[in-house]
Amino acid sequence: MDYVYGPGKNHLFVPGPVNIPEPVLRAMNRNNEDYRSPAIPAMTKTLLEDVKKIFKTTSGTPFLIPTTGTGAWESALTNTLSPGDRTVSFLIGQFSLLWIDQQQRLNFNVDVVESEWGQGANLDILAEKLAADHSHTIKAICIVHNETATGVTNNLATVRKLLDHYRHPALLLVDGVSSICALDFRMDEWGVDVALTGSQKALSLPTGLGIVCASPKALEASKRAKSVRVFFDWNDYLKFYKLGTFWPYTPSIQLLYGLRAALDLIFEEGLDNVIARHTRMGKATRLAVEAWGLKNCTQKEEWYSDTVTAVLVPPYIDSAEIVKRAWKRYNMSLGLGLNKVAGKVFRIGHLGNLNELQLLGCLAGVEMILKDVGYPVELGSGVAAACAYLQNNIPMIPSRI
Amino acid sequence: MDYVYGPGKNHLFVPGPVNIPEPVLRAMNRNNEDYRSPAIPAMTKTLLEDVKKIFKTTSGTPFLIPTTGTGAWESALTNTLSPGDRTVSFLIGQFSLLWIDQQQRLNFNVDVVESEWGQGANLDILAEKLAADHSHTIKAICIVHNETATGVTNNLATVRKLLDHYRHPALLLVDGVSSICALDFRMDEWGVDVALTGSQKALSLPTGLGIVCASPKALEASKRAKSVRVFFDWNDYLKFYKLGTFWPYTPSIQLLYGLRAALDLIFEEGLDNVIARHTRMGKATRLAVEAWGLKNCTQKEEWYSDTVTAVLVPPYIDSAEIVKRAWKRYNMSLGLGLNKVAGKVFRIGHLGNLNELQLLGCLAGVEMILKDVGYPVELGSGVAAACAYLQNNIPMIPSRI
Amino acid sequence: MDYVYGPGKNHLFVPGPVNIPEPVLRAMNRNNEDYRSPAIPAMTKTLLEDVKKIFKTTSGTPFLIPTTGTGAWESALTNTLSPGDRTVSFLIGQFSLLWIDQQQRLNFNVDVVESEWGQGANLDILAEKLAADHSHTIKAICIVHNETATGVTNNLATVRKLLDHYRHPALLLVDGVSSICALDFRMDEWGVDVALTGSQKALSLPTGLGIVCASPKALEASKRAKSVRVFFDWNDYLKFYKLGTFWPYTPSIQLLYGLRAALDLIFEEGLDNVIARHTRMGKATRLAVEAWGLKNCTQKEEWYSDTVTAVLVPPYIDSAEIVKRAWKRYNMSLGLGLNKVAGKVFRIGHLGNLNELQLLGCLAGVEMILKDVGYPVELGSGVAAACAYLQNNIPMIPSRI
Amino acid sequence: MDYVYGPGKNHLFVPGPVNIPEPVLRAMNRNNEDYRSPAIPAMTKTLLEDVKKIFKTTSGTPFLIPTTGTGAWESALTNTLSPGDRTVSFLIGQFSLLWIDQQQRLNFNVDVVESEWGQGANLDILAEKLAADHSHTIKAICIVHNETATGVTNNLATVRKLLDHYRHPALLLVDGVSSICALDFRMDEWGVDVALTGSQKALSLPTGLGIVCASPKALEASKRAKSVRVFFDWNDYLKFYKLGTFWPYTPSIQLLYGLRAALDLIFEEGLDNVIARHTRMGKATRLAVEAWGLKNCTQKEEWYSDTVTAVLVPPYIDSAEIVKRAWKRYNMSLGLGLNKVAGKVFRIGHLGNLNELQLLGCLAGVEMILKDVGYPVELGSGVAAACAYLQNNIPMIPSRI
Repeated sequence: MDYVYGPGKNHLFVPGPVNIPEPVLRAMNRNNEDYRSPAIPAMTKTLLEDVKKIFKTTSGTPFLIPTTGTGAWESALTNTLSPGDRTVSFLIGQFSLLWIDQQQRLNFNVDVVESEWGQGANLDILAEKLAADHSHTIKAICIVHNETATGVTNNLATVRKLLDHYRHPALLLVDGVSSICALDFRMDEWGVDVALTGSQKALSLPTGLGIVCASPKALEASKRAKSVRVFFDWNDYLKFYKLGTFWPYTPSIQLLYGLRAALDLIFEEGLDNVIARHTRMGKATRLAVEAWGLKNCTQKEEWYSDTVTAVLVPPYIDSAEIVKRAWKRYNMSLGLGLNKVAGKVFRIGHLGNLNELQLLGCLAGVEMILKDVGYPVELGSGVAAACAYLQNNIPMIPSRI
Repeated sequence: MDYVYGPGKNHLFVPGPVNIPEPVLRAMNRNNEDYRSPAIPAMTKTLLEDVKKIFKTTSGTPFLIPTTGTGAWESALTNTLSPGDRTVSFLIGQFSLLWIDQQQRLNFNVDVVESEWGQGANLDILAEKLAADHSHTIKAICIVHNETATGVTNNLATVRKLLDHYRHPALLLVDGVSSICALDFRMDEWGVDVALTGSQKALSLPTGLGIVCASPKALEASKRAKSVRVFFDWNDYLKFYKLGTFWPYTPSIQLLYGLRAALDLIFEEGLDNVIARHTRMGKATRLAVEAWGLKNCTQKEEWYSDTVTAVLVPPYIDSAEIVKRAWKRYNMSLGLGLNKVAGKVFRIGHLGNLNELQLLGCLAGVEMILKDVGYPVELGSGVAAACAYLQNNIPMIPSRI
Repeated sequence: MDYVYGPGKNHLFVPGPVNIPEPVLRAMNRNNEDYRSPAIPAMTKTLLEDVKKIFKTTSGTPFLIPTTGTGAWESALTNTLSPGDRTVSFLIGQFSLLWIDQQQRLNFNVDVVESEWGQGANLDILAEKLAADHSHTIKAICIVHNETATGVTNNLATVRKLLDHYRHPALLLVDGVSSICALDFRMDEWGVDVALTGSQKALSLPTGLGIVCASPKALEASKRAKSVRVFFDWNDYLKFYKLGTFWPYTPSIQLLYGLRAALDLIFEEGLDNVIARHTRMGKATRLAVEAWGLKNCTQKEEWYSDTVTAVLVPPYIDSAEIVKRAWKRYNMSLGLGLNKVAGKVFRIGHLGNLNELQLLGCLAGVEMILKDVGYPVELGSGVAAACAYLQNNIPMIPSRI
Repeated sequence: MDYVYGPGKNHLFVPGPVNIPEPVLRAMNRNNEDYRSPAIPAMTKTLLEDVKKIFKTTSGTPFLIPTTGTGAWESALTNTLSPGDRTVSFLIGQFSLLWIDQQQRLNFNVDVVESEWGQGANLDILAEKLAADHSHTIKAICIVHNETATGVTNNLATVRKLLDHYRHPALLLVDGVSSICALDFRMDEWGVDVALTGSQKALSLPTGLGIVCASPKALEASKRAKSVRVFFDWNDYLKFYKLGTFWPYTPSIQLLYGLRAALDLIFEEGLDNVIARHTRMGKATRLAVEAWGLKNCTQKEEWYSDTVTAVLVPPYIDSAEIVKRAWKRYNMSLGLGLNKVAGKVFRIGHLGNLNELQLLGCLAGVEMILKDVGYPVELGSGVAAACAYLQNNIPMIPSRI
């Protein structure tokens, strides 16, 4: 018996966990298996090879860790840094805040570079810090590619340029939780040292895999990193990679088959097409928000996120009421405003295996909810704006027949 | 490997087979079982009792036949009539046409009462025929409650009134394939003798069960009916009902558990709420069609169907192109125009386990397609009209928590 | 909530419905689809082509009918024969009895050739009848390949030889319900005119597809056959085959994908290997029965069935008690003795997607049950006999890696 | 496409991951959901309450951590201890070895008490250490309840008695990975401070939940423990418990519903009946091993494990060949011998949702494999011994009907 009920499909528009495609649900609908048989290593091998493609890396080493994004963060940090190491971290919303909190609790010396929520990472300050750091005390730059709480996408290419410009050897650690497989992300080209995501985000799987990818430089750093770690230790994985059995401890058989199916779907659609679809979804959502006369929490176009849009509501409306009503009346799940923006924004997640008509149903729902809560929206206006754009831009679906 | 592919959910808006709710998919996700164990009869007993509720009958006897709607028709006819028997049948669209064809091939003597496609059954002619039939040569009135091809709902209460008025003993056989469990249907109150539906319609299951319900009068008729039948013979079921083993031949275990789950969902929502939801969906769709400046194939409001809307397109557009584009570009399935209305109408099925935001996504999609094919629709107009109505009428979802 | 409960897997050893392999369950775990989209016809085309292989026919025309075995029988008969036509039918157990009952109720003139239950079809009498029938009044020979109630396999090659010997043009209609895809069956070589099976038997799917294959001669006969039929009319299928849309009425989307997966599994194992596996299962079961000191209901080795073994119990034991106990104590489903052999035999179904260790678990269970009901079995004896044979005969499982 | 293939079910007899019951697979066959909706907390509340029952605790606080057993270990240690803390740990097989390795890498000062593999924890030495430790330098006793590598069950009641006898305040940390929910485990009665298991063991779920339960004393210790931790920090959970939202980071929706179903099944069978079933399975397996003339790796009866049996093979046989053959010829998964007992033992896991006939199929398979590899086993002997015991001890399955 479920605890939620309404006729029809639940409209899932939180920025994770996201909708799982039917072929992936099917692939995971299975009994357990012995992970020490020849079958699981054979499949794992293909997964490790293929997962690199979604990071756009050929030189990276991926780890499929039975954990969440929080664990993936911890894996990235503890394998590359030692207690007391100085990191530069950008506080731009709830998730970067939590990562910084983790860095501090793991005893790193964190230079917090804060921006107003709704703005991107302040890279000018990064430039200053790098310029000043002649003795290379900064060991790592920690940055979220996409801040899920505010819908802000940071410019990683610029971060890399700054590091190169100042010939700074700091590691570049990137939280790609709500970006990888949805936004343009280029691990090798941008010289990212550790990138990570979670299975329940753009990969459109259940929660349970923290997917971490380490550059050769990061692997090198892991040999010297003194942070205490066992469960998250890359070394245990590397030992089993060499043995060809791959798993230092029991993986979820179902998630492995699910990941296989998820990657197959992504490659069949084409990773670039997947990203282009997210670009469309983001643009369409923003056009609707504009048509409603509402503001995007993200303050400048350069930071607009194509995976999540945080919508500012007028002061006389509690955004939590919108989220509550979405769930209780329309069988739709929207994202709450978190922490500093609680009550002020609601979030539309538009990442993962999702198509335009699903989004349009969501946008129509949001319009009705806005009216429910007393905002004078013109019903249909957001949908009209989104349709006008989408109708000119949705490509034909390639056929398998 | 599937043969259709597109990111996100397929938007299924054909008037059957319809969307299956997740709890039903889960219930059917199971191995076979011995149907002669104590378990299956115990469950079957509850199914037979509960399925009567969706027919709104207490005196009827239901049959869960492993067949389709076509087989259910044959079951209704061959168990109650003898070759040469006179029937009055209403031809108002493709499905009533097919049923009439079946009646003729089964060697009944069919009085076909034809209406223009888009109109309901001509009950004036029925009145005339009943009035004239002093010797009661008419053995059965065969009528579709809802003609799926044109979106026309017939008035069964009037049919009953006419039969009563003329004290005519003819059996009343009703095709409720696209009505039962979605439209207001009252077997006992309307004196329906055989009513039938298919599992893949408003019950929101896979295809495979023809669900037939017989009044005591129909059961009585079945003792004298001389039509040759074995597979469809009610008598074989009745024999096993008496034994308490229920099944003359092997049922689909999965469909039985699925039916159990489907009925549970319907009763949890409340049958009257399910019907009210369909009323909303029908009304919202028609408002959208009107806003688009298009005509409903159904010519008068009294016949409007709340389970399927057949939309007339302007002569310069081929409606088949709309359906094709829905599938190839928007991952949406709409219904084709059939036979006389081929090329002239496309159909939006809005029956089964479906909610308003799903429908709004569909309507937004239809708007884009209309524009694609050159119809000067105002994007957002239909959605706006539907939202204006829905926003005032959608009830809160009852919580289980 | 299920109606049967016990820890662990249910041991399903009735001769249908049988165990569904996980990949087939997975393939069927899906929402409905529009069967008029390009996808379903594209898949159907492959199914019709591939299903011919399990009949070993190249010239036959297959029909995938949404029905059960009983419906498949009716399809075979009504499409090829006219009321009053003379058939020769062999009564050797409950299922041949039911088929004969159907033939009689469909108004054919049935020459019943009865054998003691436990014996095969009396082909000497067939020879006599053919020899005597100079005017070819016999229109069809109706024979079950494998009588599921007694575990008797008839020799179809001999039937063909007799027909050829007497140059008799009668159609050969074969019930292959518990044989096709498990026993050696050769439609073309044996000149079978209509062969049929059900999806829930050796194909290891849920119930719901009656799979019928017609020879060119049977198709020719169908043009002249005067039996009344609509739902089962091959002609409606042939019309849609020509159109390339394949379905005269709604198929079960789930069963189509399931059949695709089932065929893929069978072809991957190799149809001949599948048959060889059934040979092993039958042999192993019979060795166990012998070791227990019990008799096979099948009286001669030439009739031994490799898909089901009916075991005779001593007169002081009620075989129904064995079946009841299997279910209530051991979570195992065995087949009851039916009709004439009720209380005298219990049946072990060993067909479908099943392996040797599953069978051995069943045999061990039967031993304990026999002891439960007071039969002085030596525990382990049957398993020992089966293992001795199997250990020398089970092949290595081919690897996909 | 799977990477392993064989007809029929895979016989999964590794000591984890174990067979998942169908109702649990069904419960998990679902799309993602927003874990911040009212539904997931409502369900989580019931899970936290009910999971305590399988630990037999009323005062403990459970944590459902998205990790594996290795992570659960780390959670137990880092939340209760500080670097440099002295622990007493028993090395009796591969899994206790790995836990000790973790303790050392987490910078605890581990007193390793080693036994020969096949023996239980040396509690005499524990007594000595406790007796000598007047200043209470020992902060924790770390012990596996059941060593999965050798099939040895330790006596936890005695450990508690010793601690009480010496009035020693050391925490008692117990790895119950292959015991909880299968063996008699009593957290409160035995004064266990932290107990833990993994979802893929006796709970019969997929891998992915590390289930940890902390006594009030352990919670108290966590306030002072200085081990660095973030992902595994109980405090983050406790904070969200207070908020009533329960999750500091994203849980697997599917595993939560799966856990709900798994607990429901266990409570329906009755936890004590579940344990009794494991007792039967263990006993039956050992009787078979004895009948084969082979030795149990576990040296004394007091340590016999009812969840896994490690079978010693004669020196001329490589036990890895047995495991390989099980997989390649019989579609069965057995456990390898690990580390010191590699090549010398193979393991039969008999835990989780499993019944007697499944085990008997496994035992029959092992007999054939033993013969395959040249061991002179009498076929059927083990099955006979197991059946003789089981036939007198299997209870009737309670009916739901």
